[in-house]
Amino acid sequence: MPIITLLTDFGLSDTFIGVMKGVIWTIAPGTQIVDLTHGIPPQSVMDGSFAIAEAAPFFPAGTIHVCVVDPGVGTARRAMLAVIDGDYFIGPDNGLFTLLIENAKAASFITLNNPRYWLPQVSNSFHGRDIFAPVAAHLANGVAPVELGDAYADPVFLNIPVPTTNTNGWQGQVMRVDHFGNLITNFTSQHLSSGMGVNLCVKKTTIRGLSETFGDQPSGELIAMLDSSGHLAISVVNGSAAKQLGVSAGEPVTLTFQPGKPV
Amino acid sequence: MPIITLLTDFGLSDTFIGVMKGVIWTIAPGTQIVDLTHGIPPQSVMDGSFAIAEAAPFFPAGTIHVCVVDPGVGTARRAMLAVIDGDYFIGPDNGLFTLLIENAKAASFITLNNPRYWLPQVSNSFHGRDIFAPVAAHLANGVAPVELGDAYADPVFLNIPVPTTNTNGWQGQVMRVDHFGNLITNFTSQHLSSGMGVNLCVKKTTIRGLSETFGDQPSGELIAMLDSSGHLAISVVNGSAAKQLGVSAGEPVTLTFQPGKPV
Amino acid sequence: MPIITLLTDFGLSDTFIGVMKGVIWTIAPGTQIVDLTHGIPPQSVMDGSFAIAEAAPFFPAGTIHVCVVDPGVGTARRAMLAVIDGDYFIGPDNGLFTLLIENAKAASFITLNNPRYWLPQVSNSFHGRDIFAPVAAHLANGVAPVELGDAYADPVFLNIPVPTTNTNGWQGQVMRVDHFGNLITNFTSQHLSSGMGVNLCVKKTTIRGLSETFGDQPSGELIAMLDSSGHLAISVVNGSAAKQLGVSAGEPVTLTFQPGKPV
Repeated sequence: MPIITLLTDFGLSDTFIGVMKGVIWTIAPGTQIVDLTHGIPPQSVMDGSFAIAEAAPFFPAGTIHVCVVDPGVGTARRAMLAVIDGDYFIGPDNGLFTLLIENAKAASFITLNNPRYWLPQVSNSFHGRDIFAPVAAHLANGVAPVELGDAYADPVFLNIPVPTTNTNGWQGQVMRVDHFGNLITNFTSQHLSSGMGVNLCVKKTTIRGLSETFGDQPSGELIAMLDSSGHLAISVVNGSAAKQLGVSAGEPVTLTFQPGKPV
Repeated sequence: MPIITLLTDFGLSDTFIGVMKGVIWTIAPGTQIVDLTHGIPPQSVMDGSFAIAEAAPFFPAGTIHVCVVDPGVGTARRAMLAVIDGDYFIGPDNGLFTLLIENAKAASFITLNNPRYWLPQVSNSFHGRDIFAPVAAHLANGVAPVELGDAYADPVFLNIPVPTTNTNGWQGQVMRVDHFGNLITNFTSQHLSSGMGVNLCVKKTTIRGLSETFGDQPSGELIAMLDSSGHLAISVVNGSAAKQLGVSAGEPVTLTFQPGKPV
Repeated sequence: MPIITLLTDFGLSDTFIGVMKGVIWTIAPGTQIVDLTHGIPPQSVMDGSFAIAEAAPFFPAGTIHVCVVDPGVGTARRAMLAVIDGDYFIGPDNGLFTLLIENAKAASFITLNNPRYWLPQVSNSFHGRDIFAPVAAHLANGVAPVELGDAYADPVFLNIPVPTTNTNGWQGQVMRVDHFGNLITNFTSQHLSSGMGVNLCVKKTTIRGLSETFGDQPSGELIAMLDSSGHLAISVVNGSAAKQLGVSAGEPVTLTFQPGKPV
């Protein structure tokens, strides 16, 4: 039986997530369920889209990912199943799966409009419980995607900020701040492929060169490195770059090159 | 084997919950365990009683719910098993199960005074680990409730605030604030059955009429709607009503009717 | 199949923990995984060492504990497997397992230097995902410890503060503050074995005598008691001692005796 993962902005102070698991285990007893995170900032579809794109590749083929960051719950926005390269993604059709679809070899979409696989009563504010969890459980039980609703071809895409070229490099931004206060930018190794050393500039502070690991530098030092998701991150060794620099998501970051110097 | 759920005010920063699962899996290997929430405000039996009453109906019949909000741990308060309409509720006898018992078709109570089903050593401050978790695991293994202790008939009940009638409607209150800053009141659809439009008034702010969904109104708008638990909630679209109004649990809310206007 | 536990300082706002579970379930499908806590203060190896030493005894023999508090990730610090009295502990060799090793009957150590049991790609900042999780999964699958790397005999030990004798008692300190604001000291019952009453003094406040339970005293009262981990703790009944006294980890605590008075 496939794994079901849950990723939401619901937090852990209410019983929302526990209840979704109760719904899943009522329909599909014994399914393995894993929490990806429930700490997506409220209503931030953008943050959710990055989180699911990073996490999904580490799960077995055929895993069912339930993602609920859903400011439009109860409105006419579609509830969707996206089948992407053999994995299943269930959630509101609001752009949550943009990065996955853009990088897919194959993707198809079903609008979850068959109420047979919902809870008997559907609220206007908690489709995680009433639609997405039960649909995921039925899918885990072997119900075919085609049973869950009608196919369609035009899912919603987010407009995700990508770095733009600059006089001497790139203009990007901080996409998110992690638990340790690391600033994760939208630069990846592809923006470094010049064979030259780099400077990162954020809020008038410049970081010269890249570090290989946190342990390269003394505690409190500001460093830049490629993080475990493949993005350039700005960090403070044993500290919080977000606090030290007073930076949050959206802050502009400039990447420039030092001619003649190796990365 | 039945599911075991856990609901506490223990938070997630210590190993309390992990240890309770270790105890359960030592006695009943392989049991499915689900966290309802561990974010009940410390010592708030009232919040715990609402949370378990809302969550329990979404689990299969026969589920074992372990609920520990226990300011009287180590004193003479009873440890209890309540068997309510075929489900099992384990925790301190301090009113945690009030709403469930009041709405039950059938309820019976056992005081957990048989030390055979406890851990060998019982501390004075962590009965979740030493009594409630092992009893739940033995119950999951098939031990009969009658083995766990003596039956009794007078559990503790909480005095839960209910709305009172007013000149032109009802006087109620905010019962709790959820992760999104929604203010959950003690009004339900039964307080709306007049066929008239309603006004909700909290802290000198009046909300006219009910919304169907969050998406009905623009971002930042203050709305009232029936939430997924069946209570009237005051919300800010894509925002936090608690922050915007400066309101927390206990705040009075007045519901009045607009004669001649439909709800 | 053995249980795998996870204890980290990763928090729950990112997908770090969810991803580690995906890695484990890809290699060892169906393994039972339990979160001990992910709320260890960032980079606090000391806090991690206390947490795992307290939690591990409540799990079945042969449990695999993955502990990642790893400020030296990516540097030359060893990745280790410690086999301690029949249980398995996986993490960085930075002193995390000090208390367990010091109290062990038998302990042996493997440096995890066989890349066959890692993920194919290893980052410099997330060995929890790339090394520790896959090694734990292979171990759960039955791979012998000796396959995972080379034996060694000199793990890193932390210098954990222990109470020192004083004119009329002991000088100790607050080791950590729990979710409820209880101050957990490094005094245990062994420091009380004098048959005399005790005074605890912290920040010029003196607590006379020990309480048996929280319920012994009225709400708001400052008390000292032996907690569920066997340490002397300073608590406020239905409140937070940390907030009331303005105390955090590291604060000195003096324990003195009242001659002639029983404990």
